[in-house]
Amino acid sequence: MEQAAVILLAHGSSDANWQRTFEQLAAPTCQALPHARIAYMELCSPSLQDVVAQQVAEGAQAIKVVPLFLARGRHLRKDIPAMLADLQDAHPGVDMELTAPIGEAPALGEAVRSVVEGILERR
Amino acid sequence: MEQAAVILLAHGSSDANWQRTFEQLAAPTCQALPHARIAYMELCSPSLQDVVAQQVAEGAQAIKVVPLFLARGRHLRKDIPAMLADLQDAHPGVDMELTAPIGEAPALGEAVRSVVEGILERR
Repeated sequence: MEQAAVILLAHGSSDANWQRTFEQLAAPTCQALPHARIAYMELCSPSLQDVVAQQVAEGAQAIKVVPLFLARGRHLRKDIPAMLADLQDAHPGVDMELTAPIGEAPALGEAVRSVVEGILERR
Repeated sequence: MEQAAVILLAHGSSDANWQRTFEQLAAPTCQALPHARIAYMELCSPSLQDVVAQQVAEGAQAIKVVPLFLARGRHLRKDIPAMLADLQDAHPGVDMELTAPIGEAPALGEAVRSVVEGILERR
């Protein structure tokens, strides 16, 4: 695998509609990048652990974990870094990186503007 | 006020870094649209109630409340609609609408793809 694998990491929920929204949010990335997958921290599957194991089995040497969160709450400050540290211990040969949550990227703010302008135009 | 006012509604947090991320996420919309503001459901200010009152005082006849949430959890299914119903009772002459959360908009999925492609390019 030449390029790093990507995991879009969402919180997870037992609500199927909630999960479907995140699958749709991840779809353009997963369609564009052959080694991008969605994973969930808790409450639904696939889990972060399962997707990391799968990507490593497929030959990933680097994995970028991109949080599908708008901002850094407790999960991103504590729980997810701890999960990643355990996974790094379990797969020492793989270069794992937890990136900033998507809500910190300027592209997200521009997308929000475009969504709001679209809402104001349909009337 | 010709166009509807817009409220970008975030959950809210007592953490200043969390709040700053949402202010930055809202900034392009608030800069592009003179009647767009951010408001918080709880834990920090300005509150939804205060921003609605301010926009009504400025002459808003319609207010679109756009949730800065990725998906519909309990807050969007129950708590926020109840808050909006109370506000609609308090301001019967104003046409209030709660839109879908931003995470359901296709533009957000495209923005995530663009962010991830940027992460893979910087190496």
